[in-house]
Amino acid sequence: MILTVTLNTALDITYRVRTLEAHTSHRVTEVTERPGGKGLNVARVLAALGHEVTATGFAGGATGRTLQEQLTHTPGVVDALLPVGGSTRRTIAVVDATGDTTQLNEPGPVISPAEWSAFQEAYEHLLRSASVVALCGSLPPGVPVGAYAGLIRTARTLGVPVLLDTSGEPLRRGVAARPDLVKPNADELAELTGSHDPSKATHDARRRGAHTVVASLGAAGLLAHTADGLWRATPPRRLRGNPTGAGDSAVAGLLSGLIDHLPWPARLARAVALSAATVLAPVAGEFDRSAYEELVGQVAVTGEVTAA
Amino acid sequence: MILTVTLNTALDITYRVRTLEAHTSHRVTEVTERPGGKGLNVARVLAALGHEVTATGFAGGATGRTLQEQLTHTPGVVDALLPVGGSTRRTIAVVDATGDTTQLNEPGPVISPAEWSAFQEAYEHLLRSASVVALCGSLPPGVPVGAYAGLIRTARTLGVPVLLDTSGEPLRRGVAARPDLVKPNADELAELTGSHDPSKATHDARRRGAHTVVASLGAAGLLAHTADGLWRATPPRRLRGNPTGAGDSAVAGLLSGLIDHLPWPARLARAVALSAATVLAPVAGEFDRSAYEELVGQVAVTGEVTAA
Repeated sequence: MILTVTLNTALDITYRVRTLEAHTSHRVTEVTERPGGKGLNVARVLAALGHEVTATGFAGGATGRTLQEQLTHTPGVVDALLPVGGSTRRTIAVVDATGDTTQLNEPGPVISPAEWSAFQEAYEHLLRSASVVALCGSLPPGVPVGAYAGLIRTARTLGVPVLLDTSGEPLRRGVAARPDLVKPNADELAELTGSHDPSKATHDARRRGAHTVVASLGAAGLLAHTADGLWRATPPRRLRGNPTGAGDSAVAGLLSGLIDHLPWPARLARAVALSAATVLAPVAGEFDRSAYEELVGQVAVTGEVTAA
Repeated sequence: MILTVTLNTALDITYRVRTLEAHTSHRVTEVTERPGGKGLNVARVLAALGHEVTATGFAGGATGRTLQEQLTHTPGVVDALLPVGGSTRRTIAVVDATGDTTQLNEPGPVISPAEWSAFQEAYEHLLRSASVVALCGSLPPGVPVGAYAGLIRTARTLGVPVLLDTSGEPLRRGVAARPDLVKPNADELAELTGSHDPSKATHDARRRGAHTVVASLGAAGLLAHTADGLWRATPPRRLRGNPTGAGDSAVAGLLSGLIDHLPWPARLARAVALSAATVLAPVAGEFDRSAYEELVGQVAVTGEVTAA
């Protein structure tokens, strides 16, 4: 199975209002809720593609219970979240008629040292049946900043390929622990390397320890820097829609392609098509299956194989 | 016991943020939650004053379950909420450093005809052990607009004094069913009667069917129009603080004074002091007990007894 790790899970709530105006009162006309946090988004897309996927991380309090209940209604995702004493965070996206979003993010629960130890033990146990593991998103308070680096070392020791998708200091330390794959976006990559030139920056990220770097560059698609060379994969046309979750769908595409032993061009085409089909879906974070199936054959992949 | 009815209960969530700006992302620094809806606020204040109180109304879904769990941690309030298939609403108050609040109110659950029938039956049963009943707040979708009028008639048939605190058409219809007491604020009273002169408007509300009208006029305190005449009760000084829940505390004071058989001046003094002590409390909707005890002797009550 594919294992996804979401240490800072969230219940993602979307409110529709007519116009959001600070310091006034609003009637919410529509409420939607779903389990969130990057690793859970990745798991949902993988399950929709037909993969066996197990989601671990933390869940606690009334919000954690609601999240886990909703996860049981997500076919194909096995819930291996660990209980914590704190309460799982909510995120509220207030969407108004302009289509613009106002975001309110609760802080995550504080994870105790005992909870963090219990997680590391459960993680090592889960890795023994995993073909690949993805470490996704921010760290909740209480989890050490070098957490991902430690989880990467455990996976490497057990011979399980590991993908890292995070930002800031956890990314910097994670990269140094030599993950198989990192998937930064343009900002995360620039913050890590100090360079705004994606091809220089992906090169630098590899030098820092990542075996492969796949940078998500929004409308420009993906830039992959592997041991064999550089690949660019771009969607066939400019897409209009909601980019929420597009990066998580790209991660799911990369994992899915790895499991299916696809060569890099096909793997990147799958990731770009899934990402594009997520932008096109009417509900944030879902993907439009028929758009995916149409787009996957239309992604342009160009490569420049270099001497290793 | 005192029975309070809250047909549209809510989980009241307060978020603190630095500055709320539409169409940007915000980190919430502090989250507080408590059972809400006017009748539950009234019940909490009554319990804090040492009264036996039972709270009924509806609760449903994950939010309803959270609300009921939190209610078990409110000493002295007996939970007689009825389960419904829909989900209890959340209200989110986003308070920023200016102290101003941006409010997001979810719609309530849609109440089915069967759920409304079940409520009326349970209500009649609860009334048999009630000394007084308070009907508080808005009606959720699905409950008929004449709901309060019906509940008032049931209480009158059983000889239980009934207080009504609502607005708009449910207030208009409720008043016509001859409740013992209504507690509109200035806006609600003006909407009911068409008059912005509180002493004319309270007179008119009595003519429409309310036995006694106590209007809450913010900083000006309470104006009571009873069968015996007109009373004004004003706080001893201008108060600064958060007026959230001040009206509900006034309702609790009126019910408490009725149960304790206080004459009108003492009853109004209790209501004004509780209301003022709520404005002064650091947490919205709580009251500052020592402020209450200090203020209750300082409320000025002036009366003008008229021939009945």
